[in-house]
Amino acid sequence: MSQIEQWRELAAQLRVDSIRATTQAGSGHPTSSLSAADLMAVLLDGHLRYDFQDPKHPNNDHLVFSKGHASPLLFAMFKAAGVVSDAELLTLRTLGSPLEGHPAPVLPWVEVATGSLGQGLAIGVGMALAGRYLDKLPYRVWVLSGDSEMAEGSVWEAIEHAAFYKLGNLTCILDVNRLGQRGPTMLEWNTPAYAARARSFGWEAVEIDGHDLAAVDRAYAQAEKATDVPVIIIARTRKGNGAAMVEDKENWHGKALPKDDAEKAVAALGGARQVTVAVRKPDDRRPSRAPAGSVALPAYKIGDSVATRRAYGDALKALGAVRPEVVALDGEVNNSTYAEDFAKAYPARYFEMYIAEQQMVAAAVGLQARGYVPYASTFAAFLTRAYDFIRMAAVSRANLRLCGSHAGVSIGQDGPSQMGLEDLAMMRAVGGSTVLYPCDANQTAQLVASMAERGGIVYLRTTREKTPVIYAPDQRFPIGGSAVVRASDRDRATVVAAGITLHEAITAQQTLAGEGIAVRVIDAYSVKPIDQRTLRQAASETGALVVAEDHWAEGGLGDAVLAALAASEPFPRFIHLAVRVMPGSGTPEELLDAAGISARHIAGAIRSLMAHAGPAQVSR
Amino acid sequence: MSQIEQWRELAAQLRVDSIRATTQAGSGHPTSSLSAADLMAVLLDGHLRYDFQDPKHPNNDHLVFSKGHASPLLFAMFKAAGVVSDAELLTLRTLGSPLEGHPAPVLPWVEVATGSLGQGLAIGVGMALAGRYLDKLPYRVWVLSGDSEMAEGSVWEAIEHAAFYKLGNLTCILDVNRLGQRGPTMLEWNTPAYAARARSFGWEAVEIDGHDLAAVDRAYAQAEKATDVPVIIIARTRKGNGAAMVEDKENWHGKALPKDDAEKAVAALGGARQVTVAVRKPDDRRPSRAPAGSVALPAYKIGDSVATRRAYGDALKALGAVRPEVVALDGEVNNSTYAEDFAKAYPARYFEMYIAEQQMVAAAVGLQARGYVPYASTFAAFLTRAYDFIRMAAVSRANLRLCGSHAGVSIGQDGPSQMGLEDLAMMRAVGGSTVLYPCDANQTAQLVASMAERGGIVYLRTTREKTPVIYAPDQRFPIGGSAVVRASDRDRATVVAAGITLHEAITAQQTLAGEGIAVRVIDAYSVKPIDQRTLRQAASETGALVVAEDHWAEGGLGDAVLAALAASEPFPRFIHLAVRVMPGSGTPEELLDAAGISARHIAGAIRSLMAHAGPAQVSR
Repeated sequence: MSQIEQWRELAAQLRVDSIRATTQAGSGHPTSSLSAADLMAVLLDGHLRYDFQDPKHPNNDHLVFSKGHASPLLFAMFKAAGVVSDAELLTLRTLGSPLEGHPAPVLPWVEVATGSLGQGLAIGVGMALAGRYLDKLPYRVWVLSGDSEMAEGSVWEAIEHAAFYKLGNLTCILDVNRLGQRGPTMLEWNTPAYAARARSFGWEAVEIDGHDLAAVDRAYAQAEKATDVPVIIIARTRKGNGAAMVEDKENWHGKALPKDDAEKAVAALGGARQVTVAVRKPDDRRPSRAPAGSVALPAYKIGDSVATRRAYGDALKALGAVRPEVVALDGEVNNSTYAEDFAKAYPARYFEMYIAEQQMVAAAVGLQARGYVPYASTFAAFLTRAYDFIRMAAVSRANLRLCGSHAGVSIGQDGPSQMGLEDLAMMRAVGGSTVLYPCDANQTAQLVASMAERGGIVYLRTTREKTPVIYAPDQRFPIGGSAVVRASDRDRATVVAAGITLHEAITAQQTLAGEGIAVRVIDAYSVKPIDQRTLRQAASETGALVVAEDHWAEGGLGDAVLAALAASEPFPRFIHLAVRVMPGSGTPEELLDAAGISARHIAGAIRSLMAHAGPAQVSR
Repeated sequence: MSQIEQWRELAAQLRVDSIRATTQAGSGHPTSSLSAADLMAVLLDGHLRYDFQDPKHPNNDHLVFSKGHASPLLFAMFKAAGVVSDAELLTLRTLGSPLEGHPAPVLPWVEVATGSLGQGLAIGVGMALAGRYLDKLPYRVWVLSGDSEMAEGSVWEAIEHAAFYKLGNLTCILDVNRLGQRGPTMLEWNTPAYAARARSFGWEAVEIDGHDLAAVDRAYAQAEKATDVPVIIIARTRKGNGAAMVEDKENWHGKALPKDDAEKAVAALGGARQVTVAVRKPDDRRPSRAPAGSVALPAYKIGDSVATRRAYGDALKALGAVRPEVVALDGEVNNSTYAEDFAKAYPARYFEMYIAEQQMVAAAVGLQARGYVPYASTFAAFLTRAYDFIRMAAVSRANLRLCGSHAGVSIGQDGPSQMGLEDLAMMRAVGGSTVLYPCDANQTAQLVASMAERGGIVYLRTTREKTPVIYAPDQRFPIGGSAVVRASDRDRATVVAAGITLHEAITAQQTLAGEGIAVRVIDAYSVKPIDQRTLRQAASETGALVVAEDHWAEGGLGDAVLAALAASEPFPRFIHLAVRVMPGSGTPEELLDAAGISARHIAGAIRSLMAHAGPAQVSR
């Protein structure tokens, strides 16, 4: 059999299996799989270098299905590679099967989850950055993209960054099947327009017929020759190609073929078969990585004033000195987040992502897929730009460290557009996430170091303003813990705060001490997981609790504390101080006070709980 | 004085005032203002058509400062237009001043807030859509963009959509001052690259020296001639131009000049002056809008099975029949969200935004700025893509209606990438937002109608699966209310649910009724504001409460209920059922059960609360 005939046979099998699996499941995306079957057949059996027995091999190529809804095709490739049985293939989309509706790393050969469109190429940029600048290995990153998803701005962030960083090791295979979910795309089969756009951003563009196997092969060979320029292969295809009853027809997106049609299509394609491909393995090269040393964190003197963002920069630099796998990214504000300290100390491990927060998070996902430990930072407010990427990173089971600076109204004069006021809510509601919010520099440094060891999406919220150092450098702050800043047996109320409001809480506690009211102060630096035990104990012992936070009233520390207390008996009298009216500009002090979260308001809330103690307190 | 001399004088005043205001404030962005001063002088005194005495005039031009940090320049323009006094100008960035650090519609001449970069052009697309397709008025939309923000993918979404929709009434003025916050941009002064990119997307591009007043004037005249093609004016400028000590220098982003330098710069620019410009008014043309009629909402029969997303489509279409200002947008999934019903019935008022959720929300912001009532829909999961735009829309005091379909694990086989599991948390944490989550078709229809009247950001969460119709078509569901589905004096527990879990709650209630346990069921369709009174009453009367929701455990209905109950006495025994482990694929029923939020789990939770009632219940 000639090479072309082999590929044709393999492509037919990929099509057949895509149809069989989806029809068996009763749902899924066969037509989106069929358009790319020829593209993937030639890739699998001719260009991909991947050891399916060793999916963690550092020199494996990377294949990202950015059009994740074509997962039947991907799983059919796994069958052709001999790692998924025909029976397993037919478990597609059933409970407990790792063959989910969209690819997720519950399979060893899937590195990142896709299914929210426009993310795969941006993640591929991260992998290619790792290949070119860190691993310095010849592996190639192949991203299969759909034409519909080119409407996502994140794709153009990826395209710009790939060219800027000279990622010749990145290839985008664009499956231009003309049809989206609800109808034609904006450009339909105008492949010259795609090519012109890609070229204007500095890419090499190759236009081909995506069903011409020889042309596909030539295009891949051309891409493999690239060194400093990323290549996009713009393949004109027909959605549903190979299944005549649905080919290039509207209203067939995301629908399984009925059983009769499926049988007809499979028969026309030559029936089910069990071709197996010997996928070419990568050269056995591995990156050299220095062993990790023990970190000497910065130490700050109690009583000094140091912004937690400043400590983030110091600690990250210290970590970088001893952990060669730690890398940093920032969204063009590294002189505000202080990621610049790391950037200056270890320029080879710093990636400037400019004002492209989606690309920043995606690159971090790509870098961690190669075993790096990325810290990505920008203003907390601007991480909202990347929320879909953060959400999907959790589906990817990625280990990310994110830092959002300039949290809350306490940033002052710049006004509400720059204030992170929803970041705690956003980050708490990410599957398996950790949310940290330190109040002083020593605590920040400890937490920055702990983040490196923590799995999942770990978020650190830092403050613009300088705050007093209140903890000794050797104090420990375990994730999931809290710090009881002041406590006594006589405490009649508790204030729970974190970050900037912790200092307001201390001032309020001191004021009230002068009035003979003893108040416990808890620093809830670990917002998720939160220290349920300490909070419940305080609720039980003091009977009254105030939460003060520099965040909208919803979804942040107040909600976290309530959830921790929900089943506790007795439940304390409770007041939640948070931002409830859109702030404007002003000094940090003015804005904290205007938002009702300053020391004065905290003290007032406690007095008010004292005043209403009465018989209710006794009955508890 | 010649025209050019007049402009030069005006530009000098704009520079002087930008410097004076920021130095007085002690913070702000003078250098970013100075680079665009010449561009804005010629615009204000020669091309902008705007009635400053009638900022709501329907035929006013629109000026969006996408580079919102250049607000000192904008406010200096307002002074030159005679609507802000010199004394007011010097209140910049102080508490209570409407001259905030970034523009916000607390000033009558600012329509939308900016300050999160990359949003202005996308909002301008919405305004230009209104002008061309709805108002059919000749006003022009001018957007001042910075070169740094061109790295945001959302800008390219805007560029693509503007060309696709033939928005010749949109002009982007790109201030290429070469320097971002922390250093040079990727392209620096490579204006041909910007031009090539814009042209590849179908724009007309004009490259000019942004300090050549005659060239600026000619470029604007060229833009004004455009009919079907948007024009980008790529102006090479120098950051800080006119203040020699900072001009084209790094490390001067976002810093006020020290007093001495400021005085020197002002003196060199000819000192403070009070030039006033008679800005050209628009022709007095107004759009014709038919008066609103009264809506005939769809009615569904109790017992039928209808998906709430289906009811969204029906109700939106019904609303569109009588409310000519209602418009709809969708992100290429209108056959899933059912916005397609509206699209088919009123194609002239429907805007397909393709897979570009940021652009979708931004266009809605632009449309509402012109008095339209936009409903924008996509999968709940994909609204996360636009979170920064939604956050900023709240700062814009925009009135938006957003619909997120396919909420929760109950979507079934498609898997976690498509499941909205953080949308309630995300939307609750938007300033002044409303969050609605209906469980049946009649309720959905009522809420869709109510949304039209509601200010701020209003979010409706719909469900993929069909659910039983349980309410009569004439039942009312006020925002802020709840529906008590079942209640008696004998109730020993309460279940609070919404959307799909409400039906699970009813099943659980029926099961428990068979066991002699009377359970109250509350439909919390209004998640924010939530019906505190009814929840507290139920807590007090039944003493035990279970919340069940198809959402991550953080920030959603459970947290909302706890916040409502926080100060209630006595506090009920409480269990929160929510999604706590990353789901996979499966049938909706399987996934609801696997997540622990099915009827079986709800009944189990209530039994468990009953078992632990004991003396604690009595003491309450």
